[in-house]
Amino acid sequence: MEYRIEKDTMGEVKVPKDKLWGAQTERSRNNFKIGTPASMPLEIIYGFAYLKKAAAYTNQAAGVLPTEKRDLIAKVCDEILEGKHDDQFPLVIWQTGSGTQSNMNVNEVIANRAHQLAGKTIGEGDKTLQPNDDVNKSQSSNDTFPTGMHIATYKKVVETTIPGVKKLRNTLQKKAEEFKEVVKIGRTHFMDATPLTLGQEFSGYVSQLDHGLKALESTLPHLGELALGGTAVGTGLNTPENYAENVAKFIADFTELPFTSAENKFEALAAHDALVETHGALKQLAVSLNKIGNDIRMLASGPRSGIGEINIPANEPGSSIMPGKVNPTQCEALTMVCAQVIGNDVAMSVGGMQGQFELNVFKPVMAANLLQSAQLLGDACVSFEEHCAAGIEPNQERIDELLKNSLMLVTALNTKIGYYKAAEIAGAAHKNGTTLREEAVKLGYTTEEEFDKWVNPKDMV
Amino acid sequence: MEYRIEKDTMGEVKVPKDKLWGAQTERSRNNFKIGTPASMPLEIIYGFAYLKKAAAYTNQAAGVLPTEKRDLIAKVCDEILEGKHDDQFPLVIWQTGSGTQSNMNVNEVIANRAHQLAGKTIGEGDKTLQPNDDVNKSQSSNDTFPTGMHIATYKKVVETTIPGVKKLRNTLQKKAEEFKEVVKIGRTHFMDATPLTLGQEFSGYVSQLDHGLKALESTLPHLGELALGGTAVGTGLNTPENYAENVAKFIADFTELPFTSAENKFEALAAHDALVETHGALKQLAVSLNKIGNDIRMLASGPRSGIGEINIPANEPGSSIMPGKVNPTQCEALTMVCAQVIGNDVAMSVGGMQGQFELNVFKPVMAANLLQSAQLLGDACVSFEEHCAAGIEPNQERIDELLKNSLMLVTALNTKIGYYKAAEIAGAAHKNGTTLREEAVKLGYTTEEEFDKWVNPKDMV
Amino acid sequence: MEYRIEKDTMGEVKVPKDKLWGAQTERSRNNFKIGTPASMPLEIIYGFAYLKKAAAYTNQAAGVLPTEKRDLIAKVCDEILEGKHDDQFPLVIWQTGSGTQSNMNVNEVIANRAHQLAGKTIGEGDKTLQPNDDVNKSQSSNDTFPTGMHIATYKKVVETTIPGVKKLRNTLQKKAEEFKEVVKIGRTHFMDATPLTLGQEFSGYVSQLDHGLKALESTLPHLGELALGGTAVGTGLNTPENYAENVAKFIADFTELPFTSAENKFEALAAHDALVETHGALKQLAVSLNKIGNDIRMLASGPRSGIGEINIPANEPGSSIMPGKVNPTQCEALTMVCAQVIGNDVAMSVGGMQGQFELNVFKPVMAANLLQSAQLLGDACVSFEEHCAAGIEPNQERIDELLKNSLMLVTALNTKIGYYKAAEIAGAAHKNGTTLREEAVKLGYTTEEEFDKWVNPKDMV
Amino acid sequence: MEYRIEKDTMGEVKVPKDKLWGAQTERSRNNFKIGTPASMPLEIIYGFAYLKKAAAYTNQAAGVLPTEKRDLIAKVCDEILEGKHDDQFPLVIWQTGSGTQSNMNVNEVIANRAHQLAGKTIGEGDKTLQPNDDVNKSQSSNDTFPTGMHIATYKKVVETTIPGVKKLRNTLQKKAEEFKEVVKIGRTHFMDATPLTLGQEFSGYVSQLDHGLKALESTLPHLGELALGGTAVGTGLNTPENYAENVAKFIADFTELPFTSAENKFEALAAHDALVETHGALKQLAVSLNKIGNDIRMLASGPRSGIGEINIPANEPGSSIMPGKVNPTQCEALTMVCAQVIGNDVAMSVGGMQGQFELNVFKPVMAANLLQSAQLLGDACVSFEEHCAAGIEPNQERIDELLKNSLMLVTALNTKIGYYKAAEIAGAAHKNGTTLREEAVKLGYTTEEEFDKWVNPKDMV
Repeated sequence: MEYRIEKDTMGEVKVPKDKLWGAQTERSRNNFKIGTPASMPLEIIYGFAYLKKAAAYTNQAAGVLPTEKRDLIAKVCDEILEGKHDDQFPLVIWQTGSGTQSNMNVNEVIANRAHQLAGKTIGEGDKTLQPNDDVNKSQSSNDTFPTGMHIATYKKVVETTIPGVKKLRNTLQKKAEEFKEVVKIGRTHFMDATPLTLGQEFSGYVSQLDHGLKALESTLPHLGELALGGTAVGTGLNTPENYAENVAKFIADFTELPFTSAENKFEALAAHDALVETHGALKQLAVSLNKIGNDIRMLASGPRSGIGEINIPANEPGSSIMPGKVNPTQCEALTMVCAQVIGNDVAMSVGGMQGQFELNVFKPVMAANLLQSAQLLGDACVSFEEHCAAGIEPNQERIDELLKNSLMLVTALNTKIGYYKAAEIAGAAHKNGTTLREEAVKLGYTTEEEFDKWVNPKDMV
Repeated sequence: MEYRIEKDTMGEVKVPKDKLWGAQTERSRNNFKIGTPASMPLEIIYGFAYLKKAAAYTNQAAGVLPTEKRDLIAKVCDEILEGKHDDQFPLVIWQTGSGTQSNMNVNEVIANRAHQLAGKTIGEGDKTLQPNDDVNKSQSSNDTFPTGMHIATYKKVVETTIPGVKKLRNTLQKKAEEFKEVVKIGRTHFMDATPLTLGQEFSGYVSQLDHGLKALESTLPHLGELALGGTAVGTGLNTPENYAENVAKFIADFTELPFTSAENKFEALAAHDALVETHGALKQLAVSLNKIGNDIRMLASGPRSGIGEINIPANEPGSSIMPGKVNPTQCEALTMVCAQVIGNDVAMSVGGMQGQFELNVFKPVMAANLLQSAQLLGDACVSFEEHCAAGIEPNQERIDELLKNSLMLVTALNTKIGYYKAAEIAGAAHKNGTTLREEAVKLGYTTEEEFDKWVNPKDMV
Repeated sequence: MEYRIEKDTMGEVKVPKDKLWGAQTERSRNNFKIGTPASMPLEIIYGFAYLKKAAAYTNQAAGVLPTEKRDLIAKVCDEILEGKHDDQFPLVIWQTGSGTQSNMNVNEVIANRAHQLAGKTIGEGDKTLQPNDDVNKSQSSNDTFPTGMHIATYKKVVETTIPGVKKLRNTLQKKAEEFKEVVKIGRTHFMDATPLTLGQEFSGYVSQLDHGLKALESTLPHLGELALGGTAVGTGLNTPENYAENVAKFIADFTELPFTSAENKFEALAAHDALVETHGALKQLAVSLNKIGNDIRMLASGPRSGIGEINIPANEPGSSIMPGKVNPTQCEALTMVCAQVIGNDVAMSVGGMQGQFELNVFKPVMAANLLQSAQLLGDACVSFEEHCAAGIEPNQERIDELLKNSLMLVTALNTKIGYYKAAEIAGAAHKNGTTLREEAVKLGYTTEEEFDKWVNPKDMV
Repeated sequence: MEYRIEKDTMGEVKVPKDKLWGAQTERSRNNFKIGTPASMPLEIIYGFAYLKKAAAYTNQAAGVLPTEKRDLIAKVCDEILEGKHDDQFPLVIWQTGSGTQSNMNVNEVIANRAHQLAGKTIGEGDKTLQPNDDVNKSQSSNDTFPTGMHIATYKKVVETTIPGVKKLRNTLQKKAEEFKEVVKIGRTHFMDATPLTLGQEFSGYVSQLDHGLKALESTLPHLGELALGGTAVGTGLNTPENYAENVAKFIADFTELPFTSAENKFEALAAHDALVETHGALKQLAVSLNKIGNDIRMLASGPRSGIGEINIPANEPGSSIMPGKVNPTQCEALTMVCAQVIGNDVAMSVGGMQGQFELNVFKPVMAANLLQSAQLLGDACVSFEEHCAAGIEPNQERIDELLKNSLMLVTALNTKIGYYKAAEIAGAAHKNGTTLREEAVKLGYTTEEEFDKWVNPKDMV
């Protein structure tokens, strides 16, 4: 491989000749060979692209950066956002905990690419832009990385998670409507209970997701607070006047999202409770979705020896050995995602709690976990909706058969003959393998007519 | 021990003669010898007392319970709330997952105590009140237990957690004000960084707690939704018209808290996402408090070989072997509480995700964990405030000494001579054990006058 | 209340006159009002009693403690172990993270009680024993508390957890034997699968617990390592020669358990990986037991609309509203315990990871969580065994009915006619609501005789 | 794109013409668009390659597979293991929870590639090998996927994790030796304590890792148990005699690792406690490494306002804004990895606890988490060792300065003048800013000669 020489404050480094990155990126690439290469999420790089452009605009407006430099920076940022330089960000999550090296990776790529755009060859001639003094002007890793991760995660939540969950929520709501007359046996403690409609059962799922979405949305204002302008320790050293507010406005403008400047920059660097907060809401959704996915798996169980009250789409052959088997695979993918998200939540806590003094140095791991959870939940909801929920149909025959035989219909008699006599009827029917009606009459607690009038599943829902 | 005979639908049970509870409580007491006896939190029992009274009022108003029965029930509930029967609730958390047996414990105690209030001896004569048909009228364990636990946890959060956190927050805010002129070295990556004021450092803690309190408060509407009226599976079987709304109003009235009837009773029985949601906010606070407690521990470290920038109160001899040692014990208690809360959050997830069909049967463990976390956080904040935060003072001498020597003041030169030259100065001073000023002048990058003008810690915060 | 005056190095403290504790205990009681009073587990106090007695014996043998002082200390320790002073330990878990104050609580109680045993009145005359110089001789909180918690948790694991899990394991093994001829439908993905015996199903549970017990037992050597002799920072300052080894021998002797002196005392003070390790094995058991409890709950579901393949004992009326309902309450208690243990495991990690330099100051919270998990798992297994597992019986009629109808018996044909034709048969039977036999013959893939010979559930297990 | 038509039991599917996979892979690719494409770890695919080859050998030996088919299968497996087909496995973790579709992916790739090796064009002519009847012979997804994941994770642990941790352990051990004479101040509660040597401090880290490695190694026998031979539900339906044992032997032979056939196949399919167990040991190591990484970060803090007792290598410029800053970046990467592993452990629990009946359907998420944790821990230890631990040097000047001033040296006087007088000396020196020596003499508790003889840090370690 051919190399060129790049320099930083520690000296010279050999960098692959065809790459846009510079000395510090290369150092980090060699110093942190941990896990899959290039694991730093591209979403964060894109977040950086927004903020570097916004910083350039703010600096230019403040008179500390020439217009032509601003435009060069902005042009490269736009190229990055178009995905043209995705292969120029080779670093991993497991680097310095402030993400400094990914900040420098972006600074270096912008500076070198700007050099090219200025018609020059990288490494030759005076630098068109200085990575630190121009591209990173009025910035520090300590405020840019958290800004980049807030932009990335906010976008992911509003563009992937919320739409995905809503899509599923809406389909479940439609099903709740469709199934509102389907009276079926209820189950509590996984034991037969009094009836409800299948629509009511599904309405519970909708209500869970509605509450979850509300919880998630109420975390957004905190997540929308940006650290930029705090620079090294939160004081805003080396920034022009009103920089923090102005740069936040540019970011809001470029992303078309309601970002604001964090009121307290010391928190914004030293703690990432905002990420913890948003992930907490994702975890809540995972808890909800695990219940929903598991219920649907069990409701669809069978075909002959399970609950079997609903049919779900058969999307693929279910078994490599058992011919004809169809499995609730979307439920499985969904609940596996839930397991991951619930685990990730602990990684968030462990990272979030360990900030020290002016900086939390678990930024990359926290951002990566939040991005993964947000992506997986959104995707899994869409997949589950398209390939499972949308195709759910009641198995009316099975539902009716189970309902008819249920002993828990006896509950309707509580208000007529009292709990204790009702219990006696149920016990006798269970023991004798008979119907409630037979035993109610045999015990002399109701007439046949009374029984039929009082015990009607449709009146019990 | 003397016994009397009590009966339920399964037959006779011997119950200690002097106890108010009945057959089902006694069965549970014998069937679940798991962990410490009587571990079911009293707060939940008190929650039941509110709801049993409210149910009696609602039933009476609906014409399904005589006024005298209502009044008897209410009278016993009031006695329970006054703490007169605390020893009548011997059951454990680790019972049936719907809390049925604690519901029956309350029903039985109310019925037997009412019998006494009616001037009779327990077990003799016709029952004044039937535990199931009267005390439990229009109710099921499945809707009463979640109602009881929402009442209990809501009260705990607003009466203990929020006031406790606020008390600490206010003291930290006061300290942030007091310390706003105390310029000190900042630390990022636990390494020396540019200066900030001690007040700014503390303002970050305040901001964390403000965001945490906001997050916690925004979970309250969900937690304020009550399941009561859903009865067995959420359909409200065996309840009078408008029962759910009316009973919620009585509960709101009796507790003076804004409880509402859950819009969707199916969710309210089958999922406890509301508890997961509230605990998620407590976990966020634990993450914040761990950072704060750890920072303060480290800032106070010493007396001679640590950071030592603040002094904290000496509350007790610190060591049984090292004479004269004073330790940051309140920080330790606080961060241990945080560890517990972060662990409890996983117990909440594991319980919350495993609801099946119409019921989640992890109610007691979820309620107990939420109550514990809410109590511990509130108490620990008060303890930390009183015995530590309120007495924090800057160690001005040490602060000044560290600030004066700092190499990171060089950052102020970035905008004057550029990042690379500034780095050279810092490197030289570090290597030679000299001051920045000496090296800046020696290298010819600034005059002495320029240096003194440009590098002034007070201007850097 | 009447008080007496006690002193420590910080001055005078008023202590309730009738209590054996002294100044430092009283300070802690007032400074840490967090959660339930006296929450420090008594098991740890008893652990201290063993070690204080052992230390006295070792000190006496080394010639640094007079025999009469040794005997006085030993006598009080024995009284503590007999439970005579349980009310003299009022401190909470949430105190200093080294447990210093509970060490002093024990030192003070021993000193004051020894004063009484010497025929004197507490607070009057010269102290018979000095809490620090005599009772705490050759010790520090930093090595006594970890020693006390290792003794306490080791005992709990071997006396409660392991016997409890084994009891359940043995009953499940007995059931596996009993049920070894009961051929039933298998279920994978919660869908019908090829048959197995109920005994085979239960044998999987036994194997899980066997592996879990093995894992738990292999953590015991680490847990059996005692910190005592490390004193303040692990160096063993102020201890006589061979003290650490000798004191460990006395402890092993007094407890009749194979305790050893930790090879590395620096680890033993600064890290509690041994507790993390043992709790990890408890967490593994919780994961196993959750699966077992959930399976049994589902196998017993019904009585008419569930799986219903086994019957479990009816221990209590199941529902306060649904008469005649019997619920899998022991499964619920067991799985709630599992949720707690899985949560506690995270509290262990969070505590364990935060040791700093020579000391981990999350000792009490770690010890308390391990004790709770060990107790709950042991108790829950016993409860589940006695009130559920021992009474499990197959519901042969239901098992046969489900087996007969199963479509997955078709798998037996794979090796005869190939996977694809077998799948065609199963699909046709599913679609037409017919039997495999009918379709196999209709499609011309087997004769009736071949089908009956090839498809025999008993041959498939 | 050009397509060809592939068929499975559900019908025809269009597959990209140049790909080796078939119908079921393509269905899965389209049905599970969740997260990053092709996220199923290649290590698992390689595990499959070992087992498919082993199954072919076993089947051939049992007379149920022709030798030429065996050889074709083996040849493709070898190609897969050489990395020649890495782009033929496009599926994601978030698919069916049994991994069925990845099993079929492997079956299809082997069958199609064998067709090519037989000189034919995919999709033309009779299939050389049937994916189900030949490649999957005597197998089910339910036993192959767990086998594949055990092979993959076992290899990862023994080839990456253990060597990585050992490498770090050995370097720390070397440092412990090197630093065994470096007497320094100890710190407990982050407060000054009695002295120890830097070597002793590091020996604690070594002891932690030794215990952790032992714990990890003791999980290997369980992880080495293979499910293969259990087929669909654990009974071994459709396998030749002695198949399970024989196939395990071939796998052990091909991998040169001590794999065995699981004694109980029902556990091996329905529960993945072995993965939970191994990950538990990884989590323990993460807890240890977090302590170590954090300690080293703090010991190296400074350069002028921290602890500063050791120097660590400067690998990269530390700050994009603060010139000359060097950060403990390897500590940060390491502790971020620990956070991830501790989070992953919860994902393992959540997955492991939710097996139902004969199958746990959280296989892919569990395998992926274990692989990630094992890889990250191994890599992070190597990175930390190479770029940090190996270069650690004591800062002797700073160490001496701190030691000399320490007040906790007073502890040496306990055995000479008693704890209370020693405390008085320390208190006076702290208050007056003087030395212990001065105060000891002034108070008349020691002579100067006694003090110098008794208080010697070198004697205290």
